[in-house]
Amino acid sequence: MKTVIVGAVAGGMSAATRLRRLDPAAEIVVCERGEHVSYANCGLPYHIGGVIADRQALLLQTPDSLRARFDLDVRTRTEVTAIDRARRLVRLREAGGREYEESYDRLVLSPGAAPFVPDLPGVERALTLRSVSDADRFTALLADRRPRTAVVVGGGFIGLETAENLRRRGLRVSLVELDRQVLAPLDAEMVTAVHAELRRHDVALHLGTALTKVLPDAVQLDGGRLLDADLVVLAIGVRPETGLARAAGLTIGPRGGIAVDETMRTSDPHIYAVGDAVEKSDHLSGEAALIPLANTANRQGRLAADAIAGRPARLDGRLGTAIVQIFDLTVAVTGWSEKRLRAAGRPYQAIHTHPASHAGYYPGARTMALKLLFDPHDGRMLGAQAVGGDGVDKRIDVIATAMRAGLTADQLADLELAYAPAFGSAKDPVNMLGYIADNLLTDRQRTVQWHELDAAVGAGATLIDVRTAAEHAAGHIPGSINLPVDELGDRLPEVPDGEVIVYCEVGQRGHTATALLTGRGRRAANLDGGYRTWRAGMTSPWADPRHG
Amino acid sequence: MKTVIVGAVAGGMSAATRLRRLDPAAEIVVCERGEHVSYANCGLPYHIGGVIADRQALLLQTPDSLRARFDLDVRTRTEVTAIDRARRLVRLREAGGREYEESYDRLVLSPGAAPFVPDLPGVERALTLRSVSDADRFTALLADRRPRTAVVVGGGFIGLETAENLRRRGLRVSLVELDRQVLAPLDAEMVTAVHAELRRHDVALHLGTALTKVLPDAVQLDGGRLLDADLVVLAIGVRPETGLARAAGLTIGPRGGIAVDETMRTSDPHIYAVGDAVEKSDHLSGEAALIPLANTANRQGRLAADAIAGRPARLDGRLGTAIVQIFDLTVAVTGWSEKRLRAAGRPYQAIHTHPASHAGYYPGARTMALKLLFDPHDGRMLGAQAVGGDGVDKRIDVIATAMRAGLTADQLADLELAYAPAFGSAKDPVNMLGYIADNLLTDRQRTVQWHELDAAVGAGATLIDVRTAAEHAAGHIPGSINLPVDELGDRLPEVPDGEVIVYCEVGQRGHTATALLTGRGRRAANLDGGYRTWRAGMTSPWADPRHG
Ligand SMILES: Cc1cc2nc3c(=O)[nH]c(=O)nc-3n(C[C@H](O)[C@H](O)[C@H](O)COP(=O)(O)OP(=O)(O)OC[C@H]3O[C@@H](n4cnc5c(N)ncnc54)[C@H](O)[C@@H]3O)c2cc1C
Ligand SMILES: Cc1cc2nc3c(=O)[nH]c(=O)nc-3n(C[C@H](O)[C@H](O)[C@H](O)COP(=O)(O)OP(=O)(O)OC[C@H]3O[C@@H](n4cnc5c(N)ncnc54)[C@H](O)[C@@H]3O)c2cc1C
Ligand SMILES: CC(C)(COP(=O)(O)OP(=O)(O)OC[C@H]1O[C@@H](n2cnc3c(N)ncnc32)[C@H](O)[C@@H]1OP(=O)(O)O)[C@@H](O)C(=O)NCCC(=O)NCCS
Ligand SMILES: CC(C)(COP(=O)(O)OP(=O)(O)OC[C@H]1O[C@@H](n2cnc3c(N)ncnc32)[C@H](O)[C@@H]1OP(=O)(O)O)[C@@H](O)C(=O)NCCC(=O)NCCS
Repeated sequence: MKTVIVGAVAGGMSAATRLRRLDPAAEIVVCERGEHVSYANCGLPYHIGGVIADRQALLLQTPDSLRARFDLDVRTRTEVTAIDRARRLVRLREAGGREYEESYDRLVLSPGAAPFVPDLPGVERALTLRSVSDADRFTALLADRRPRTAVVVGGGFIGLETAENLRRRGLRVSLVELDRQVLAPLDAEMVTAVHAELRRHDVALHLGTALTKVLPDAVQLDGGRLLDADLVVLAIGVRPETGLARAAGLTIGPRGGIAVDETMRTSDPHIYAVGDAVEKSDHLSGEAALIPLANTANRQGRLAADAIAGRPARLDGRLGTAIVQIFDLTVAVTGWSEKRLRAAGRPYQAIHTHPASHAGYYPGARTMALKLLFDPHDGRMLGAQAVGGDGVDKRIDVIATAMRAGLTADQLADLELAYAPAFGSAKDPVNMLGYIADNLLTDRQRTVQWHELDAAVGAGATLIDVRTAAEHAAGHIPGSINLPVDELGDRLPEVPDGEVIVYCEVGQRGHTATALLTGRGRRAANLDGGYRTWRAGMTSPWADPRHG
Repeated sequence: MKTVIVGAVAGGMSAATRLRRLDPAAEIVVCERGEHVSYANCGLPYHIGGVIADRQALLLQTPDSLRARFDLDVRTRTEVTAIDRARRLVRLREAGGREYEESYDRLVLSPGAAPFVPDLPGVERALTLRSVSDADRFTALLADRRPRTAVVVGGGFIGLETAENLRRRGLRVSLVELDRQVLAPLDAEMVTAVHAELRRHDVALHLGTALTKVLPDAVQLDGGRLLDADLVVLAIGVRPETGLARAAGLTIGPRGGIAVDETMRTSDPHIYAVGDAVEKSDHLSGEAALIPLANTANRQGRLAADAIAGRPARLDGRLGTAIVQIFDLTVAVTGWSEKRLRAAGRPYQAIHTHPASHAGYYPGARTMALKLLFDPHDGRMLGAQAVGGDGVDKRIDVIATAMRAGLTADQLADLELAYAPAFGSAKDPVNMLGYIADNLLTDRQRTVQWHELDAAVGAGATLIDVRTAAEHAAGHIPGSINLPVDELGDRLPEVPDGEVIVYCEVGQRGHTATALLTGRGRRAANLDGGYRTWRAGMTSPWADPRHG
């Protein structure tokens, strides 16, 4: 059996090595149009910034090492230009120009995705970052031209990593983003800290702004403004590399990726496809989704090999867990965001907390913002977001694991997470989410979201700040009266009749206050996430302009 | 409804605060025989070491703060000395001597556990560490007597934390442990690194050794040896505080803790008990287990309140996830160890890996040792252990979550864990465990454990080191022949007939070599965890003395 693989990085090479382990006799040809194979795309921004100084560290394998260990026939600078499905042949073109055909029994496509380059004047000068060769172009330019200014277009994961690493190299960096915020998977109130962190590190943010033109040493934005730009970087998303597949008549899915079944098989039973080029199934909706992440590409590569070797194997729907470091901030997400749920009309309940990374009484604890979204009827978890430092990755990984396994939000309370003072809390932040979800799911408590507050107050609710007088004095929600939780029992008569919304700094004292008031027969709700979430939301670019 | 609670720390106070939130009208009396309430026991060792310099930081609440916020009637220096179940009264004794009775509708016992103190000559001088007052005794002694030497008896979590913190204060520290190893939940090959770390930090280890006598400035060990000991600390485990419960005729379980049902109810329907004093149900076996950990104590306290307030609530079996920092090493465990499984006669399969905390190409990655135990028939996960630095807590928490949710070991391959180079790998260490489990569960690969190697070689197997010649020269398993994996394809004829056991440094290249050999019709097995696990096992105190 002969398998030809297109693309020699995450998905393609994982398929190749696995196939060899499953079938020592298989003939395996891997075609890569670029110069390098098995490289760490994810490390490229850090190589540009000098964090990964040694370029060699990015090259995990070479054609020689792969031949020696796995008996793979790896052909670099060799592009697959066409598939002849009827004859089961692919057409290859070497960088030198030579063209030839190669037959296959099974074909695996892992061509990845290409950075999207809009059709704008002067755009040829802009750099994109996908391969080691791309990174080489960056480092050559940085060394030769000693640029002083850079404009990064696109505030996604790769754009932010690139912006940070160019700052690290001392450039003045502007970030241009069409959306009103960076990092689309984050909700408004969660992204505020990211904007602040970027500004704190002197990245000039141009949000809600489009690039219109690339000039020789500047870029032009919509509205005509010019930004100095010795370097222009485009990081406005990637598009599945579907050229080959389209030309061969393979089914392309609704999101523009190659359509595959659970075993990675395309519409042609002899052709498999994996990685950034294919559509995955969304864990929540089952709909087609493009999730260009390395974990899934590697997983799919192995699965395709399993399928080819006749092993049972199928891929579940994807959550799209992702993480990015932005200077001293870590941002991680899994599943859906609130805005996506809202847009889809899916009922959800949100929880915001601001827990410490580990026990507050042990030195070095750092506060993170944590958000959980779940179904208000059955408790199914829908998504989570975390912004902070230490421990953000852990909490999102735990939640992603619980989501994959189908736990409900309140079941997070029962997780036994490793606790010693340097690592967590006796009630870990994830347990605490479970407690809060439990309170909401069993209808013991009602909460109000930061963006619902105006309407609630408009409808006549009284707003009570249950923090201390000092906290209240330092900043509070306009119109709120101060009635510290510790005095609530004695001062109950002061609480006005009718609907009451209480808030504290993060929601925890508010929870106790709400419970006390509700227990005394009042109609009370807690402001979810407290003053901190409200403020983050109201200072976000999405907030009602009246409070902007 | 009036509830009396015995013990005002993790379990008791969690019950009290929760009960207040569920029922603002409830009468709640909390009795604490000590001086302090709601304190962070888990921080005590670090207070002694000066890491948590501010003693106040350990006191999370005071009777006053609890009265103000939760309207709790907290009585410190008030011991509950007897329960009159027939009349639903408890007898209280104040530190001053006054005794009186208090009635209850519901009683919650959370008296914790007491450090075990063996009946040895001179033992009165030894310190134990359970409460803030105990810690005060330590700090007073350290300040007044300026001790230079300490002997810590007991190599469990608290013993190790205490030893480390006494080293931090500059004392010469010896650790005496009856068992041949510290940290009983770790298997032999996993504990080797812990012993090394302790020695590296000049903690003198006396393993397999019993304390026989405490002298005025030394201790005597079995065999007669004397160790200087200005300070003697006993940390040889805790015993549930069951005095009250026993005297009142409540059912005590097989492990010596108060017996409770899933709702925390004791054999008396009006009495609940939680925390270190009670027996939990083991997640794996369903048998009674003593798991004296703060997470569970807090969880149970809340559950008892829920039960009293008539909310449905039940506690699942416990995994006993735990973690401890030992100088620069982090050790975390969940579920059962191999030795425990073996002793119980339960079939299991073990996997050892040595993954990097994050992508190797990104600076700062550190290797950890990771071990997973699962059922060889159905893949159910039975336990996990990790020893390393950064990222150990995360991997154990993810596995504990997956275990709680009932995922099988091979399903770990499908977890979508947050990956960027600073946080993990495209195939996270946990995913990799899933891949390896998949290979074992589907019977594609056989492995041999470090402790099975002798027998296998004795039965005629050939041992092949598939690492490079340089690695082989630097140290190898006696009797193995060197045949690097990258040359295996060409040098197949050199592989002797019959059973072959291959090994590499950590098992990964061995896996590929095994697959290649098996595919070529050879009978091959991979040494699980490679040379590194084998060496750790063989230098452990449990190893066959021939290799010791
Ligand atoms: C800068 C950057 C940072 C990233 N950071 C992260 C991160 O932190 N975390 C994360 O999860 N993911 C990250 N990713 C995404 C991750 O790298 C991809 O998900 C993964 O590499 C996809 O694997 P793939 O095999 O589908 O495609 P690729 O790895 O892109 O490999 C495709 C290969 O196919 C070759 N090819 C394409 N067409 C042909 C053809 N016709 N003939 C021959 N060869 C062809 C291409 O040259 C390319 O080398 C990052 C990506 C980039 C670019
Ligand atoms: C030094 C140390 C370090 C620890 N580190 C960790 C860690 O890192 N991680 C972890 O998970 N766990 C740790 N623990 C364990 C954790 O502290 C316990 O699991 C938890 O405190 C148990 O809660 P509890 O309510 O059952 O008992 P406790 O917290 O011990 O509270 C019981 C209270 O009841 C009082 N009491 C007992 N009898 C009576 C009576 N008759 N009348 C009135 N009052 C009474 C006692 O004085 C005591 O204050 C540690 C414990 C210690 C001592
Ligand atoms: C590295 C690469 C060539 C794949 O090679 P690979 O040998 O399949 O993968 P790894 O080196 O990760 O090893 C995984 C294999 O070793 C096994 N393994 C790992 N540790 C092991 C251990 N301690 N004991 C036994 N087996 C082990 C796994 O089970 C798996 O084998 P399987 O697929 O047969 O189950 C391919 O993933 C690649 O090119 N990666 C770099 C590109 C990339 O991922 N870029 C995007 C992210 S930056
Ligand atoms: C702290 C202590 C007094 C309990 O007080 P508590 O108010 O019940 O607990 P916490 O302060 O942890 O807060 C948890 C409550 O706040 C809620 N909460 C937490 N964060 C919230 C937020 N952001 N929004 C809304 N509610 C929140 C939780 O849901 C929970 O309420 P619930 O039980 O009604 O669901 C008790 O646990 C204790 O004494 N601890 C110290 C001793 C100890 O644990 N020692 C061993 C470990 S060192």
